[in-house]
Amino acid sequence: MKTLIVVGHPDLDGSSTQAFLQASAAGVPTAQWHPLTLNVAAERQALLAAERIVLQFPLYWYAAPAMVQEWLATVWTTRFAQQLAGKSLGVVVSLGRPLRDFHPGGAVGVSLDALLSPFAALAQTAKMTLLPPLAIAQFAYQIDAQRARLLVQYQQYLGLTVPSSFSAQAAWWQTQLAQQPQAALLAETLATRQARLESLRATLAEVKGDD
Amino acid sequence: MKTLIVVGHPDLDGSSTQAFLQASAAGVPTAQWHPLTLNVAAERQALLAAERIVLQFPLYWYAAPAMVQEWLATVWTTRFAQQLAGKSLGVVVSLGRPLRDFHPGGAVGVSLDALLSPFAALAQTAKMTLLPPLAIAQFAYQIDAQRARLLVQYQQYLGLTVPSSFSAQAAWWQTQLAQQPQAALLAETLATRQARLESLRATLAEVKGDD
Repeated sequence: MKTLIVVGHPDLDGSSTQAFLQASAAGVPTAQWHPLTLNVAAERQALLAAERIVLQFPLYWYAAPAMVQEWLATVWTTRFAQQLAGKSLGVVVSLGRPLRDFHPGGAVGVSLDALLSPFAALAQTAKMTLLPPLAIAQFAYQIDAQRARLLVQYQQYLGLTVPSSFSAQAAWWQTQLAQQPQAALLAETLATRQARLESLRATLAEVKGDD
Repeated sequence: MKTLIVVGHPDLDGSSTQAFLQASAAGVPTAQWHPLTLNVAAERQALLAAERIVLQFPLYWYAAPAMVQEWLATVWTTRFAQQLAGKSLGVVVSLGRPLRDFHPGGAVGVSLDALLSPFAALAQTAKMTLLPPLAIAQFAYQIDAQRARLLVQYQQYLGLTVPSSFSAQAAWWQTQLAQQPQAALLAETLATRQARLESLRATLAEVKGDD
């Protein structure tokens, strides 16, 4: 699956979040890191060649930055959008506030889903499959363990057909681990556990079928 | 009450909706028609001088156009926003689709409230009072009666402290009608009815008090 990462950040070189994501994306051979431009023909060609389009930006005053809106208005016209039907659309958004602020009663008072609803509408209009957003809150304050988890989540978001499926994630881990000889044993253990889990699930389905 | 209308339209001269709104706003002496600029000092001075700030724009791909986002990022910084506490914030949004599209199950699949939620979050952060949005759907297809109604709604949105209050609307009509000699009788009738309505309301309150 080819993935195009459309990066819209007003200060790309100064962003440690984006530097981290770019390094992480380099580990996904099928994903293309693509800071957006307003070259309409080139942008459209890149969009058409991808199966998944990931829009990636920081939230500025609770919305996508001006450059993303400009890009949508220029490149992604209503007519062109018709050619994107069937592709999947992801949104990777970085936040300067903690996630708990994005709730009624929280400091922002509005859910992140509501703030990102323009992209739900965009996906519906273009007949694309919307992925749940990947939100990165306060990257600067994240400790190493959180960043290690983010790397995995992000790579899966770029590379897995259904990033939220548990079995797809387990398969992804096996592939990753198999590539590192010292981790072969761990990969084998994981494969065994996954097999047992599937066997248990099958048994459970049979039991339920008996009701 | 001084109202600043911050107009963010990428093709202001070509928009019949905006021409209509500008002509309507001319009937409200306390409202200032102000196409946005990126002159930070001048914009901030205008914002600080207003008691009500109305952001007015067409929806482009279900969000405010790039120029509005650019203006917010440039002029309306987090620090500056603290000086806007206590003012009211309105949103006048023009739509190319009918309102019925903006519902789950509709063509857009998302409510207008959700799409405009970044402005709810903006108001909450700046401690401003958010007004319900004034949505203008498919102005080009509106017949004269609809436009006459829109003119009144828009003028009230700009001029009334609480545009959604019925008694404030009745008082507004009386003022408007008193200015036209031939309508004096109508204004008097309206005033009499409003007085009767208030008397009935008082009686009702007394009756309830007896319970």
